Amino acid sequence: MNVINIADKFSQIQEYYRPRIAGELNDAYLKLVKLKGEFVWHQHENEDELFLVVKGRLLIKLRDRNLWLDEGEFVIIPKGVEHCPVADEEVQAILLEPKSTLNTGNVLNERTVAAQWI
Amino acid sequence: MNVINIADKFSQIQEYYRPRIAGELNDAYLKLVKLKGEFVWHQHENEDELFLVVKGRLLIKLRDRNLWLDEGEFVIIPKGVEHCPVADEEVQAILLEPKSTLNTGNVLNERTVAAQWI
Repeated sequence: MNVINIADKFSQIQEYYRPRIAGELNDAYLKLVKLKGEFVWHQHENEDELFLVVKGRLLIKLRDRNLWLDEGEFVIIPKGVEHCPVADEEVQAILLEPKSTLNTGNVLNERTVAAQWI
Repeated sequence: MNVINIADKFSQIQEYYRPRIAGELNDAYLKLVKLKGEFVWHQHENEDELFLVVKGRLLIKLRDRNLWLDEGEFVIIPKGVEHCPVADEEVQAILLEPKSTLNTGNVLNERTVAAQWI
């Protein structure tokens, strides 16, 4: 039961689109991720996903519209909704997801990674 | 599926220790709460609880030690661990809890409230 400083943890993250686990509660992980560039279109069949932007400006493309998130804003992408994060400049975001969630959801490719603790 | 600005939501909250629901994902609510003064000692039998401090400095008293959280810091209080939040000055915090969580945990008293959406 430790107090976690989010900025400290982000300073240890070098890679983009590699979520790191910073906490676990109930059946979920709280993850920290740096995003830059465009990710892949994907969905999570059974899991809603929280994106909370700590730094920067994040675009989440949906099939029918775009969502823009500034610092201090969040959105919850419901299960089954295709989305694609895009960050022109580096974005730092908190994710909250069930432990079973894969970063690329229903898509398995070279960007699929198993999250490690930080 | 709306983008939520956390500061905007906090500006609408007047009362202390009345968590308001700002989002739901899976079986959990993301809640916003303003804290000032000392709460009550309680525990949550079956639910871990996240405290993420957005503004101010929060003390969470445990039976064996004190946890201090500054802005941008979080802690997860595991199920069954007695805790008592204390805020000398106003604190704004994000909570993440299963939908079943009562604010006063195992204690039912005049401070027990059912969370409302904001």
